[in-house]
Amino acid sequence: MKKETQGITVKKENLVDWYSEVVQKAELADYAPIKGFMIIRPNAYSIWQNIQDYFNKVLEKKGVRNAYFPLLIPESFFKKEAKHAEGFNPELAYIKNTDEGEKLALRPTSETIMYDSYSKWIRSWRDLPLKINQWCNVIRWEVKQTKPFLRTREFLWQEGHCVFSTENEAEENMNEMAEEYKKMVEEILAIPVLIGKKSEGEKFAGAQTTMTIESLMPDGKALQMGTSHNLGQNFAKAFNVKFKDQNEKEQYGWQTSWGFSTRLIGALTMVHGDDKGLVLPPKIAHNKLVIIPILFDKTSEKVLKKSKEIEKKLAKFNPIADYRTDYSPGWKYHEWEMKGIPLRIEIGPNDLAKKQVVIVRRDTNEKISVPEKNIEKEVPKLLDEIQKNLFNKAKKFLDSRIDKAETLKELKEKIKLGKIVKAYFIDDGKTEDYIKEATEGSTSRLIEFSKTAGICIHTGQKTNTIGYFSKSY
Amino acid sequence: MKKETQGITVKKENLVDWYSEVVQKAELADYAPIKGFMIIRPNAYSIWQNIQDYFNKVLEKKGVRNAYFPLLIPESFFKKEAKHAEGFNPELAYIKNTDEGEKLALRPTSETIMYDSYSKWIRSWRDLPLKINQWCNVIRWEVKQTKPFLRTREFLWQEGHCVFSTENEAEENMNEMAEEYKKMVEEILAIPVLIGKKSEGEKFAGAQTTMTIESLMPDGKALQMGTSHNLGQNFAKAFNVKFKDQNEKEQYGWQTSWGFSTRLIGALTMVHGDDKGLVLPPKIAHNKLVIIPILFDKTSEKVLKKSKEIEKKLAKFNPIADYRTDYSPGWKYHEWEMKGIPLRIEIGPNDLAKKQVVIVRRDTNEKISVPEKNIEKEVPKLLDEIQKNLFNKAKKFLDSRIDKAETLKELKEKIKLGKIVKAYFIDDGKTEDYIKEATEGSTSRLIEFSKTAGICIHTGQKTNTIGYFSKSY
Repeated sequence: MKKETQGITVKKENLVDWYSEVVQKAELADYAPIKGFMIIRPNAYSIWQNIQDYFNKVLEKKGVRNAYFPLLIPESFFKKEAKHAEGFNPELAYIKNTDEGEKLALRPTSETIMYDSYSKWIRSWRDLPLKINQWCNVIRWEVKQTKPFLRTREFLWQEGHCVFSTENEAEENMNEMAEEYKKMVEEILAIPVLIGKKSEGEKFAGAQTTMTIESLMPDGKALQMGTSHNLGQNFAKAFNVKFKDQNEKEQYGWQTSWGFSTRLIGALTMVHGDDKGLVLPPKIAHNKLVIIPILFDKTSEKVLKKSKEIEKKLAKFNPIADYRTDYSPGWKYHEWEMKGIPLRIEIGPNDLAKKQVVIVRRDTNEKISVPEKNIEKEVPKLLDEIQKNLFNKAKKFLDSRIDKAETLKELKEKIKLGKIVKAYFIDDGKTEDYIKEATEGSTSRLIEFSKTAGICIHTGQKTNTIGYFSKSY
Repeated sequence: MKKETQGITVKKENLVDWYSEVVQKAELADYAPIKGFMIIRPNAYSIWQNIQDYFNKVLEKKGVRNAYFPLLIPESFFKKEAKHAEGFNPELAYIKNTDEGEKLALRPTSETIMYDSYSKWIRSWRDLPLKINQWCNVIRWEVKQTKPFLRTREFLWQEGHCVFSTENEAEENMNEMAEEYKKMVEEILAIPVLIGKKSEGEKFAGAQTTMTIESLMPDGKALQMGTSHNLGQNFAKAFNVKFKDQNEKEQYGWQTSWGFSTRLIGALTMVHGDDKGLVLPPKIAHNKLVIIPILFDKTSEKVLKKSKEIEKKLAKFNPIADYRTDYSPGWKYHEWEMKGIPLRIEIGPNDLAKKQVVIVRRDTNEKISVPEKNIEKEVPKLLDEIQKNLFNKAKKFLDSRIDKAETLKELKEKIKLGKIVKAYFIDDGKTEDYIKEATEGSTSRLIEFSKTAGICIHTGQKTNTIGYFSKSY
């Protein structure tokens, strides 16, 4: 036991402190020497890589191809689409000492530089649809307080950018990609989300319509986990993205863009973690189990041999084999629990005698004795159960926190309880601004259109729009 | 035939113009709106992704884990290791308008920012070896003329950074990674390389020893395709990367770094391309074949049906199925030849009758009639042959261009012939500087130590060092 005290010292109910301790001690991220930046450590990067692997398959299926566009964007590009310019202006960082005349910004998102190329590449309807994605780093010079994964000045993401010849295709693409996001997040990250449109005030700078997926964190704040935009012809007109249709007539293209980021890793941590640390859903965990032999002098050789046999049998689950002799089994249990490994397999001399192993679930702490011959069947079954259990627990929480309000007072009270509160409102920007102020910063995370009209909680007017209001990250 | 004239208009012997035309027309890259930057288009990015997939497996096997460090690095970090500072200073770009006191540079390479973290993460011999890699963009503000893939102000690369507790391990790691680079480049890119040490003048800024892999381009200029450095304790001392050894004594770590970049795509293009355009080695090609049906009104339905059958049979080779009716087969042949697809399968009514298809090799233009029932066996065999043929052709070229010289005059003449010329020289920096000037810019691409001594072509002194001199990219 040569190492310092380990383990998480803060309860999860104290979410802010708990989060920074888990991020550090599970070695997900570290603070960078520059304010607002983070270092994504291997334990977190492997999550990102699994997400990339999953999503690259989705992209291939959808006919979207990966590419890479420059980090630097001429300042003038941002000015071409007025709302986009307004939305991103405060967050831009520029480089200096260049030999160019013009100021060059570090990309906060790549609509402008990509569509400049699209305008050259697209000539005819035959060139459409054009579907390109890029995985890259982006820089947004946030002034709000930063937090690893959730809000940093640099983060990693994917951004897809498509051009279609009809408005319908663009609308469809926006919807299908939002659905793919929901599917991915629910299936592999085990995080249930709400899906819907953004209000006028919350939609992307330059978009006609924005779809979002949102989940609720344990502190009652919503987290936006991915957005998909129908850009209409706004950018096409600003960047001259035109094509000749089948009648040789020139038309503007219809565009979409959609993205998610390393923020997902922050969500994952907050939603599933517990007082012991990180809890990884098996589908996103690179190492799905850890093997810990219980070593005593007399039997250690036999136990090690058996452990290695089992390690080999379970190779496809990328087991961590912790055979170190200068740490006690107890120390190791804590270590790998803190790091969120879904299953722990303990093998001691008694197990050897009984031809069994002990398997411990990270999510429930349940200890299960499994005959050695069943282990290859039992492990995937248990992993599957953990995956489902984590999703169901999170779903129950989310469902329990969705409520509704008929007055502003009721809305305020329920938001204070950490709920997502449904309320009728007029989606004209002003009303949402008012609610935001009245509720100390809550916004509509998404909206839906109800068949039956209701009364706007602010203006008292009739409306079919329901907003899902809450605080958010 | 609705499209403009296509095809490459320049012969490969005119390499500079040919290269830019192929890069553009095969849609590998496009010029960016900012000087010296490039857009990596999907046809090139898919090559990069295949390289990543291959190399991520190598990394996993070697116990190296991926991570991500910030894009921005405090200026002071560069000053900590004197030679590193001197080497990179002219290429640094900085951001402005920050709220930090200090100037922040865009990373040209990440030794400094990574080792700052390493100094915090490493405490004991138990934390070693530490092996981390990152895939990222880097910025080097080149002042020389830029060229897509070969020299641009931004490029993509991987950089591996390891710390060991002994000098031996670091030396071994440097060597084994250089060998892995050689293996990768030869096996999947089919480019034969020379491997060896860099001279004092050519080694990495801050390294003790640099290993390099180099190939020869058709114009007789060498291209460095990857380097691996033994950093000794230079950076460890500058960044305080220390560990307590098993006797509780504090020691500096021994470090390595190694990297290759999207430059490999430029090499691939130049080495294998021909007058018709790009030629992709099958192992790096995402789409290993294209299926082109020969459609006539009466038989088109049957031919299309058969084409789709074959497409399905060959699905694992990611076939491009070009069923467009507004382009002639001839047009399509040219198009996919230009883009380098290894095999073309033609299916016409006559083939249907004979229960065969015609397969055309991109590398040799050979047309082969293959009975339909043999096609699944024949395709991988042909792909394998193409891969080998491309490597052998390139190897023959490289071997034919290696020569030696005993005088400076001879060296000059042979370099003018586009050769890599071996010559004895004193590796003290000054001698190489002299040779560089005398040969209008040639340098030693790598060096080797001969058992028998020879006479330095400049100083006339005895030496065991042989340099491989040539012009280079």
